[in-house]
Amino acid sequence: MMRSHYCGHLNESLNGQTVTLCGWVHRRRDHGGVIFLDIRDREGLAQVVFNPEQAAVFATADRVRSEYVVKVTGVVNPRPDGAVNPNMPSGAIEVIASDLEVLNQAETTPFPLHEHSDVGEETRLRYRFIDLRRPEMAAKLKLRSRVTTSIRRYLDDNGFLDVETPILTRATPEGARDYLVPSRTHPGSFFALPQSPQLFKQLLMVAGVDRYYQIAKCFRDEDLRADRQPEFTQIDIETSFMDEADIMSVTETMVRQLFKDVLDVEFAEFPHMPYEEAMRRFGSDKPDLRIPLELVDIADQLTEVDFKVFSGPANDPKGRVAALRVPGQGSMPRGKIDEYTKYVSNYGARGLAYIKVNERAKGAEGLQSPIVKFIPEENLNTILDRVGAVDGDIVFFGADKAQIVSDALGALRIRLGHDLDLLTCEWAPLWVVDFPMFENNEDGSLTAIHHPFTAPKCSAEELRANPGTALSRAYDMVLNGTELGGGSIRIHDRSMQQTVFEILGIDEAEQQEKFGFLLDALKYGAPPHGGLAFGLDRLVMLMTGAQSIREVIAFPKTQSAACVMTQAPGTVDNTALRDLHIRLREQPKAE
Amino acid sequence: MMRSHYCGHLNESLNGQTVTLCGWVHRRRDHGGVIFLDIRDREGLAQVVFNPEQAAVFATADRVRSEYVVKVTGVVNPRPDGAVNPNMPSGAIEVIASDLEVLNQAETTPFPLHEHSDVGEETRLRYRFIDLRRPEMAAKLKLRSRVTTSIRRYLDDNGFLDVETPILTRATPEGARDYLVPSRTHPGSFFALPQSPQLFKQLLMVAGVDRYYQIAKCFRDEDLRADRQPEFTQIDIETSFMDEADIMSVTETMVRQLFKDVLDVEFAEFPHMPYEEAMRRFGSDKPDLRIPLELVDIADQLTEVDFKVFSGPANDPKGRVAALRVPGQGSMPRGKIDEYTKYVSNYGARGLAYIKVNERAKGAEGLQSPIVKFIPEENLNTILDRVGAVDGDIVFFGADKAQIVSDALGALRIRLGHDLDLLTCEWAPLWVVDFPMFENNEDGSLTAIHHPFTAPKCSAEELRANPGTALSRAYDMVLNGTELGGGSIRIHDRSMQQTVFEILGIDEAEQQEKFGFLLDALKYGAPPHGGLAFGLDRLVMLMTGAQSIREVIAFPKTQSAACVMTQAPGTVDNTALRDLHIRLREQPKAE
Repeated sequence: MMRSHYCGHLNESLNGQTVTLCGWVHRRRDHGGVIFLDIRDREGLAQVVFNPEQAAVFATADRVRSEYVVKVTGVVNPRPDGAVNPNMPSGAIEVIASDLEVLNQAETTPFPLHEHSDVGEETRLRYRFIDLRRPEMAAKLKLRSRVTTSIRRYLDDNGFLDVETPILTRATPEGARDYLVPSRTHPGSFFALPQSPQLFKQLLMVAGVDRYYQIAKCFRDEDLRADRQPEFTQIDIETSFMDEADIMSVTETMVRQLFKDVLDVEFAEFPHMPYEEAMRRFGSDKPDLRIPLELVDIADQLTEVDFKVFSGPANDPKGRVAALRVPGQGSMPRGKIDEYTKYVSNYGARGLAYIKVNERAKGAEGLQSPIVKFIPEENLNTILDRVGAVDGDIVFFGADKAQIVSDALGALRIRLGHDLDLLTCEWAPLWVVDFPMFENNEDGSLTAIHHPFTAPKCSAEELRANPGTALSRAYDMVLNGTELGGGSIRIHDRSMQQTVFEILGIDEAEQQEKFGFLLDALKYGAPPHGGLAFGLDRLVMLMTGAQSIREVIAFPKTQSAACVMTQAPGTVDNTALRDLHIRLREQPKAE
Repeated sequence: MMRSHYCGHLNESLNGQTVTLCGWVHRRRDHGGVIFLDIRDREGLAQVVFNPEQAAVFATADRVRSEYVVKVTGVVNPRPDGAVNPNMPSGAIEVIASDLEVLNQAETTPFPLHEHSDVGEETRLRYRFIDLRRPEMAAKLKLRSRVTTSIRRYLDDNGFLDVETPILTRATPEGARDYLVPSRTHPGSFFALPQSPQLFKQLLMVAGVDRYYQIAKCFRDEDLRADRQPEFTQIDIETSFMDEADIMSVTETMVRQLFKDVLDVEFAEFPHMPYEEAMRRFGSDKPDLRIPLELVDIADQLTEVDFKVFSGPANDPKGRVAALRVPGQGSMPRGKIDEYTKYVSNYGARGLAYIKVNERAKGAEGLQSPIVKFIPEENLNTILDRVGAVDGDIVFFGADKAQIVSDALGALRIRLGHDLDLLTCEWAPLWVVDFPMFENNEDGSLTAIHHPFTAPKCSAEELRANPGTALSRAYDMVLNGTELGGGSIRIHDRSMQQTVFEILGIDEAEQQEKFGFLLDALKYGAPPHGGLAFGLDRLVMLMTGAQSIREVIAFPKTQSAACVMTQAPGTVDNTALRDLHIRLREQPKAE
């Protein structure tokens, strides 16, 4: 090997030893006739000193510029007093160079690496091979690799088989738009890139694999939001002969071990919370339990009030009226409240009522609020008691369709938690369980909340009778308000699977056409099975504190699903298109 | 968990213990009023005994059929004398059932699993979820998973970072046909699925990742031969600041550890053989060293003979005349020789001359051969001495363009090795090194033997002067005549890269268009780097002794690149095509 040590691994224990380093010139300083080069590699930085007495080596050092690739040999020495840098692992030593070889030169990089610079993301992506040299980016790549290593070791040690499923496959039923691949050998036909290996992993259970995992690429051709990419990575797990408690236990242990391995964080056992409770208390099916604020239902106190904004939803079975107490914020300025009102309007709320609790002892007199006048004092007192309001608090109110109130107050709760620095801990994992099987569409039809292969908690007869209220055997792992992963016990009974398809309005012909092979598989001895899939990108994002999913992917796409570095997608010649039996439509005239 | 043990893990150490098994009914036998069920799971079989005294359980057992999914509880007992099955890990015990639950029923499967049946591959692929239950298929999936686990552990332990590179990318320069993915957001543009992560891994080196690996899906839209699949898996490795000796050492150790871990096979250090020697002695750049037969060059003895078939190639600088001695086969029947003559014609040979060495002491008299008459006795003797022929041998001859002779005699050598059972060992790994940089095309142009990013062993000036004879810094790992992996030191010098592009006839405009980002990367401080890629499918095929790559892939495609199970590729509705800015060409009228 060309190097004897990584730069970042040098320390006092090597004092007096000759080492050879290979890396990039991170920074150069000239001081008192001596040249100092900070050499950088994947593991960190080391300071190398070039004295003019070593004339040839000094002359070479004098020629090198930032980002030159060099090989340096020298002796590790303690730094002189006062020159020790405690912020750097190798900060107590320096290397006195005896040899320097320039392995490659470098033009001035499009952005500097040794100092912070406000370079746009487009430039960083275009020169990703430079951007990834920045120590904070290198750290993210390293952490991601440690995450997959930890997870693989755990799963390997627990009898899970790593099985690859196809990338060129059939349109999957996840509902998002598929990426399509024209077939050359089957004119007019297309492969789809998988949105998940869901059906394949179920088939592997039917095949007797028993415990499967895969760190699998998945694809969705959707308009990209900040945290989405056309291709993303899933830690995909499926097991047979386990119930939901078993699966949650195995995967929770995996995540606990992961955080211990990689971040040295120890989690207690994860609480389990029914979906209904999560929505009621936190307005979200992925509650951030670090924030000590809760929604409180108060519809029962407002059914009779002479204020339609409250009494309407309070009397509507699909409505919700809820309060959110924020302790000690009774003097929140009007401008701030307006800001929050605007914020909740993003979630559909048409306003944000509030009460500032100045002096409860004074009754309505002691409350400052535009809505107090509409609410009888008795109800007001019950409400304030119920939310636990004391002098100095502010209480916000939401009244609308249940979904809007939950979304708006749920989002406000998170926002306030961060704005007011209320987080009670660094990490708050939990399981959300007892999800409904279906959600109601406007037109009265039903959509599967997880996917149509999720087993219900009830019999087929009960499901048919009350699909809207039936619960599923699904579970989500949530961390800090982010869904890390979700899964369920799957349907292994063919007639139950057909029942669910029917409830979803998928008739027999469509069942055969889309899921014939699954129904076949359920016919020939399918074991009870279930699993889970974790979003790796989001998991690594949380663990690194990255602000965007693009920060934890080596070569991400932009928001328009392009790679500015390789210029993908690109044009293709006509022969290739003819081979694939397709042609282009007219290009839009102007763009 | 539902089960206490896997079936295949039961043995005498559990005698007297109550166990619960979950699995499939592999076989049922009724004997002396008792029902025996062989229960199968991923780990093997266990025999379960149902006695009629346990009336309810017995009645349930009486109802189950092959491939029913069951849960059985019972006590482990030694089998009676004479009933022990030494071929089965659990063959010394049986489980006396006290409880039996049918978890799922099964219709009669399309082919039986408990006995060999000559079922066509199409049926096996259509019902892959049943086919994979067969213990020999399950064993292959398990071994594949152990292979990736072993490799990952080795690479993780040696500081390699697992980094994912994009699947939706730009057309790659490997030369095969790309799978294309129309872009919705960039009308008229297409992504390509990668034929390998080659350029991305080089960019990761420029980014300072230092040691990279990925078990990566790769794609080629080619007409499928027996050992090809549209998507295949590559163990992809790249390192910086290592030379070829370092890289070969690291990856050889990896493979050695792999075979030790998974097959308990210990390899000695791999021999290194120059390409020229491999072609000369074995007619192949991936010689199977298990076979103790060698090609011997004899052109120098035949330049003057009055037999154009020999003298032509012997005097042609691009020709080759070689002999292959097969010991003890002097009485090979004519029919067999005709068979081999036909076989070598597949490789372009227009005949297969031979000499049967009956009695060398008798001179030409003692030789049986249609060609002896054309060769002066002195030359004949030199040839026979050179190949080491003794009485009772047969010697085959090839004379043609060098490539044809090497291919034909090289293939004959392998065929004879197998037909005559000559293999001297089970495993014969080696490195082939010192490949030429380029191969000559008919039209005088050059093609890169590895890929255009492979570094030459010489300077740019020397390369320009003699491109046809220049050697590269490439290396292939070969096992039993199969190329397991290949790699090289890459070009890290921008002007050298441009020189190679020029020699390959890629002008500056095309360089910019296709490889602009690589040339950019080489400009900003690219380290010396190199790597290797192993074909995982082929590796697992070798390790399992599978006859086809399809046997070691969970869900492979057929020869026409289709999945008969999911019916992929499939048709797509017009809206989807319109979203992608493409339309179908007319379908061919008849097919």
